Amino acid sequence: MPLVETAPCVERCEGGVTAPRGFLATGLHCGIKREAPDLAAVYSTVKAEAAAVFTTNRVVAAPLVVDQEQLAKSSAVRLIVINSGNANACTGEQGLHDAWAMVKSASRAFEVPESEVLVSSTGVIGKFMPMDKVQAGIEQAARFLAAEGSLLAAEAIRTTDTFVKEAAVTVQLSDGPIKIGGIAKGSGMIAPNMATMLAFVTTDAAVHGPLLRRAWKRAADRSFNRITVDGDTSTNDMAVVLANGQSGTRRITSTTHPDYAAFVCGLEDVLARLSRLIVQDGEGATKFVEVRVTGARSEREAVQAARAIAQSNLVKTALHGEDANWGRILAAVGYSGIEFQPEKVAISFNGLPILRPNFQIDFCEEEAKRALSQKEIEVRVHLDLGSHEATFWTCDLSKRYVDINANYRS
Amino acid sequence: MPLVETAPCVERCEGGVTAPRGFLATGLHCGIKREAPDLAAVYSTVKAEAAAVFTTNRVVAAPLVVDQEQLAKSSAVRLIVINSGNANACTGEQGLHDAWAMVKSASRAFEVPESEVLVSSTGVIGKFMPMDKVQAGIEQAARFLAAEGSLLAAEAIRTTDTFVKEAAVTVQLSDGPIKIGGIAKGSGMIAPNMATMLAFVTTDAAVHGPLLRRAWKRAADRSFNRITVDGDTSTNDMAVVLANGQSGTRRITSTTHPDYAAFVCGLEDVLARLSRLIVQDGEGATKFVEVRVTGARSEREAVQAARAIAQSNLVKTALHGEDANWGRILAAVGYSGIEFQPEKVAISFNGLPILRPNFQIDFCEEEAKRALSQKEIEVRVHLDLGSHEATFWTCDLSKRYVDINANYRS
Repeated sequence: MPLVETAPCVERCEGGVTAPRGFLATGLHCGIKREAPDLAAVYSTVKAEAAAVFTTNRVVAAPLVVDQEQLAKSSAVRLIVINSGNANACTGEQGLHDAWAMVKSASRAFEVPESEVLVSSTGVIGKFMPMDKVQAGIEQAARFLAAEGSLLAAEAIRTTDTFVKEAAVTVQLSDGPIKIGGIAKGSGMIAPNMATMLAFVTTDAAVHGPLLRRAWKRAADRSFNRITVDGDTSTNDMAVVLANGQSGTRRITSTTHPDYAAFVCGLEDVLARLSRLIVQDGEGATKFVEVRVTGARSEREAVQAARAIAQSNLVKTALHGEDANWGRILAAVGYSGIEFQPEKVAISFNGLPILRPNFQIDFCEEEAKRALSQKEIEVRVHLDLGSHEATFWTCDLSKRYVDINANYRS
Repeated sequence: MPLVETAPCVERCEGGVTAPRGFLATGLHCGIKREAPDLAAVYSTVKAEAAAVFTTNRVVAAPLVVDQEQLAKSSAVRLIVINSGNANACTGEQGLHDAWAMVKSASRAFEVPESEVLVSSTGVIGKFMPMDKVQAGIEQAARFLAAEGSLLAAEAIRTTDTFVKEAAVTVQLSDGPIKIGGIAKGSGMIAPNMATMLAFVTTDAAVHGPLLRRAWKRAADRSFNRITVDGDTSTNDMAVVLANGQSGTRRITSTTHPDYAAFVCGLEDVLARLSRLIVQDGEGATKFVEVRVTGARSEREAVQAARAIAQSNLVKTALHGEDANWGRILAAVGYSGIEFQPEKVAISFNGLPILRPNFQIDFCEEEAKRALSQKEIEVRVHLDLGSHEATFWTCDLSKRYVDINANYRS
């Protein structure tokens, strides 16, 4: 049972952020980390339209402050420079100064206007950036841009991620194919801090700015905002898409444009896969869990219930223990804040009914154990109140999570 | 450094719920559990005024439905019958019928009006009550009421609690002493479910009904509602106080009554201690953590920030690992939803400054390690925005938590 399905007009392909035409990328080691790659660049050969979403945490890292200022002035972007190893968060005035210095260095090195550069950082918080190394790295990156550089960039944005995260699709529009590709990092908690999620997506489709921002927000809401490893949000979370129009297909200008739906579909596929990879790499995760709440009165309530289930430590430890603990799931819905009737609820694990309406419990423990022994588990909760639904992705809570997070700052 | 301090007019004493005059209690084994005590009764020799708070979970166990109906009709209560081993939750019509049958049996056995009986259950959910055993147990309990029966009752309401939870105080009012005593259970997750918290408190003070309910709600808000082991709330949570006036002191009739403040102070001391015991018995807990947020613009915001910190898995695992991870604490405040200025925040562990305003970090790792190696840790977060504060109690998150919760249904 594939938990993420693809629409017919969307075909998966290789290449990540350099799959779409007119994008180059690279990644290298500049010395922020001791050994691993720690500096990446994603570059468009022509001006691209950008859309971005940023952390909702009130503690916002310096690069995000800079990017929001940049995008408020103009949504044209040519270049994103990303470093790992240092988050440039909780660094005050000096941090802001350093983030702007990254913009200026990158502008010079890549020969693009300052206003068309975004910056992004992930790593240790509360430490100043080693700017000498970063600036030397930026100059080097400008010389090593590559048409197949996506994997290098994906490598260089990792922190404690155990594998690189890339996805790309070809979408058939009415007048030809376009590509959408992305790289992401997540999962890894960053010394001394939290799970930063970064995602950078490119497309050679031509999309009207306001429409791109609308599609991006919606797709991010339904993917990055529907995953949870431990519920904490970081100071550095950001996700950006660049659309440079190099496919040569017609500009998509409105939601009623015949190609808009296909574009959104491709975008959501890339984001859903990146999201899924982030959850699969969740710290200490041994199982991928899809929580699907159906029969809700509204999508908002479906999301609320699904989030409560996906974030419950009790549910996540039960799934880790392969225990068909429907009571914890029902209780999580109970405190999610939605109105519902407990006696109407049905719960199944990977298609096996566990709880039927009117609290009928008649599953066989062995079958349940078998369903829960899978590496991928769909927890389906039907509320029987309406026709709305929502899906959340999470992982189980294991002892390794505690191991990883109890001690990595030292 | 005592994390819970007592006001001068309040003196701690022995005796739990049977410390106040005119209260009897008992606990025994009726057979819901295989071996351990599983039925308790708390009884007042005269009519008592009752106040109660119930779970906010939308899935509400049958006994709570019954109690809310009882209290809506009259707040006079003589008897509370409590069983452990079965939660009588998610049991539909049959469950309600059984809860009412417990009321009727108890009324007969203890010779008190049906309207003056409350019932409470904790344990497995989704299973019908073994009513034969319960009813036989109730009859037996009526014969074994004892003036020093508090400990027996405290024993019988345990589920996976590793120790009994009792507290009592003597409070000097203007015309003589009164006592307040309580028993509680918590911490333990209940197969196949969640952390039910139950608390039963008695006092021989005479308190006007509406005033008692006001004081009870406030004290519960500042104690039971300020503790968290894993953030999940249960279908069976309830806390009740009975005031029978047997001390002979004057009735406290208004908030301006000279003895009201002293009474509240005693009540809060008992509830704070029961809350603290629940957290100390948190599953897999190795550390007791007091999160104190000061300098907030309002108490509401202080509570919001303190709750976010206390519920963060990342903060709790860091404390388990004795890691001075101020970044996770700051990030939790960041996503708590309150307005604040990160650069103003100061954080200390057991009095040792870790983060000073303007992100100044100049602690010595060895000193920090020493502060965090204590069994009791005060995490103090000063927002520097106002004069309000709030305290939350929690425990660390250990591998044992995962062990305990991954598999106990089987």
